[in-house]
Amino acid sequence: MNRSTITVAQSNAFVSTFDLSPTGSGALDGLRFAVKDTIDVAGFKTGCGNPTWRDSHPPAVAHAVCVEQLLRAGAHCVGKTVSDELALSLLGENQFYGTPLNPRAPDRVPGGSSSGSASAVACGLVDFALGTDTGGSIRVPANNCGIWGFRPSHDAVSVAGVNPLAPSFDSVGVLAQSADVLAKVARVLLASAPVSTNKPATIHVIREGFALADAHVQRALSEPIRRLREIFGGAVRELSVRELVAGDAGDSFAKWVDTFCVIQWAEIKSGLGAWIANAKPEFGPEIAASFQLVDQLDHRLVAEAMQVREQYSRSLNQFLGPEDLLCIPTTPALAPLKGHPPPRSSSGSGYYPRTLSLTGVAGIGRLPQVSLPMAEADSVPVGLSLLARHGQDSFLLEVAKRLAKQAWS
Amino acid sequence: MNRSTITVAQSNAFVSTFDLSPTGSGALDGLRFAVKDTIDVAGFKTGCGNPTWRDSHPPAVAHAVCVEQLLRAGAHCVGKTVSDELALSLLGENQFYGTPLNPRAPDRVPGGSSSGSASAVACGLVDFALGTDTGGSIRVPANNCGIWGFRPSHDAVSVAGVNPLAPSFDSVGVLAQSADVLAKVARVLLASAPVSTNKPATIHVIREGFALADAHVQRALSEPIRRLREIFGGAVRELSVRELVAGDAGDSFAKWVDTFCVIQWAEIKSGLGAWIANAKPEFGPEIAASFQLVDQLDHRLVAEAMQVREQYSRSLNQFLGPEDLLCIPTTPALAPLKGHPPPRSSSGSGYYPRTLSLTGVAGIGRLPQVSLPMAEADSVPVGLSLLARHGQDSFLLEVAKRLAKQAWS
Repeated sequence: MNRSTITVAQSNAFVSTFDLSPTGSGALDGLRFAVKDTIDVAGFKTGCGNPTWRDSHPPAVAHAVCVEQLLRAGAHCVGKTVSDELALSLLGENQFYGTPLNPRAPDRVPGGSSSGSASAVACGLVDFALGTDTGGSIRVPANNCGIWGFRPSHDAVSVAGVNPLAPSFDSVGVLAQSADVLAKVARVLLASAPVSTNKPATIHVIREGFALADAHVQRALSEPIRRLREIFGGAVRELSVRELVAGDAGDSFAKWVDTFCVIQWAEIKSGLGAWIANAKPEFGPEIAASFQLVDQLDHRLVAEAMQVREQYSRSLNQFLGPEDLLCIPTTPALAPLKGHPPPRSSSGSGYYPRTLSLTGVAGIGRLPQVSLPMAEADSVPVGLSLLARHGQDSFLLEVAKRLAKQAWS
Repeated sequence: MNRSTITVAQSNAFVSTFDLSPTGSGALDGLRFAVKDTIDVAGFKTGCGNPTWRDSHPPAVAHAVCVEQLLRAGAHCVGKTVSDELALSLLGENQFYGTPLNPRAPDRVPGGSSSGSASAVACGLVDFALGTDTGGSIRVPANNCGIWGFRPSHDAVSVAGVNPLAPSFDSVGVLAQSADVLAKVARVLLASAPVSTNKPATIHVIREGFALADAHVQRALSEPIRRLREIFGGAVRELSVRELVAGDAGDSFAKWVDTFCVIQWAEIKSGLGAWIANAKPEFGPEIAASFQLVDQLDHRLVAEAMQVREQYSRSLNQFLGPEDLLCIPTTPALAPLKGHPPPRSSSGSGYYPRTLSLTGVAGIGRLPQVSLPMAEADSVPVGLSLLARHGQDSFLLEVAKRLAKQAWS
């Protein structure tokens, strides 16, 4: 679809629109942004994609810290965007608010849970949007809608005023049409000084990450990988996931996914369980299935999962030098067709376990990740992802900017 | 007071007592612990020290992840402890629940906001207790009650199931009678492997940190500092706070405190503002005064404060080698006398700004800190604090254990 002609109503990306003026001037002067409806904007209810949640919570009295930072840097806030219910999905099909438009593939889902934020950006209605990402909720919709997505290092951006899902993995990040805007906005959120380096020491292409992707995703990404080799030469090398975690057997991501899911479900139960038991909300069938997984967790598994997480996180951050990157597909498959949700199971070879295999690396490792809209298969967007060591967000973003300039030149 | 004779009722440390059996066996077999009432225990309301909060929230349906970890490692949970209202005080005088006993100085406050946890440990009613610490809420009561207190690196221990105050600074930590128990429990929460090193490369004694303390605190700490020099020799050296933050003028902590307070108040408003506006809770006069400070904040200051925080945090963590420590007094003054709350102002030379000058270093820097009960003045406990680089919690705890063995030998 020609995005210059898409209206707010056609996008179905927004739960409300308004115009909130900047409170200062700076790097984001003249830019317009939208905010996922899991993040507070003063005076509005934070609905979290579920009407029972919206109706059982009072309006926010302050902006989330991240919104405050963006307004102070000169950006205009123009609306709040549709979220999957309680941010607990990777699809973007909300039974109460509908499915935000994926203008690059209108018969496919936009991806979630930052579905409206991705759609608003992809439809050209804003310059950038805030999203949240626990298990892929920025990266997957960025991938599906063919835009740039940034998940920061864990604990690098304030989550105050942002509805928690699983605090050990929750993050606030950005979706944008360009790498330049992505990096500018990220720098404001990270409150960090710019860096000048954009030359990776090594880019480790994770073999099993590509092997688990569908054949057309592998084919689509072979050209960007070739360009990476052309631009960075010998810095690009292949690596097995076995080499990332010293002493741990296994050449698949199965243990990563198990670990991620156990901790995520335990934390979701802690954060939302009491409200669910009390408010008895109506959920769409997809979300209800997710909460069944949450409810079925044997909580005695949590302590061991925390140990595995710390072991893997420490190994990853020791393995990666300050200018090293990891490279994986953002998702293993094209965006699912609308109305055909894949099964929720977290094991086996379905969409969810394979996607979490890829998105879980940043989650487990606390690593920053950028999804780069560098390919397509049958006109459907396919994203390539780069990850850096914890705290190396600014370096990662500079590399992304360089690739945006060079990769298509 | 002779702590072997103090009853639960006399301690006034608990809001409820029960016996929750371990769900596994391990490093904490046979130990009994209590949980601050800002942390979820399934089946109980998390009251956060304020009756309106308690009455407007449903009971927890799951244990907080930290409680789950401790039960799995073999510990018994025996009760929930008094917190200052919404964890927003450093005193431990709660107008609704009373003042938990400080058995080492019964005419003085126990310190807060983890007042009941510190009291339960100091009274010998439990082996250790969980607390939370945003601006000093574990370290100050550990100091006042003459016990060991540990605040972990930020983001090193799960906060799922723990009521947030200011997420950029919130942490879950431990109070204990001995350094051994402190380290054992901390290792379970950190889910980390043990380390064998306990020899600091350098212990930087921060000159201005001691200069701002009262004369009797300085005098009381001169003996432990002398012992540090005896044990670690030339590794102990003096340092000015100016050297910690490259390029930043100023030889006081004023900018640290301002930065901490702006971010803390903004985040508190984000987290609690809507509930306060809606539930209109009754607060004690001390807490009401704190919320006035929160309400008066000019939110345009937040973005700049976040920049200063990131600059300071990055400088601190670059300055500190993996086996370097910082050394400061835990608090600048003896525990205040009961019924004589110091003014809440965050500037000037009062109790709060001087205490936040010291506690804010770990907060701003995301650093782990241990308060060591190594001195007293007129029989009132005085704590010495050691801080390490972010992520070096296990090393710091090993040093603390070594000092516990050697410093009094």
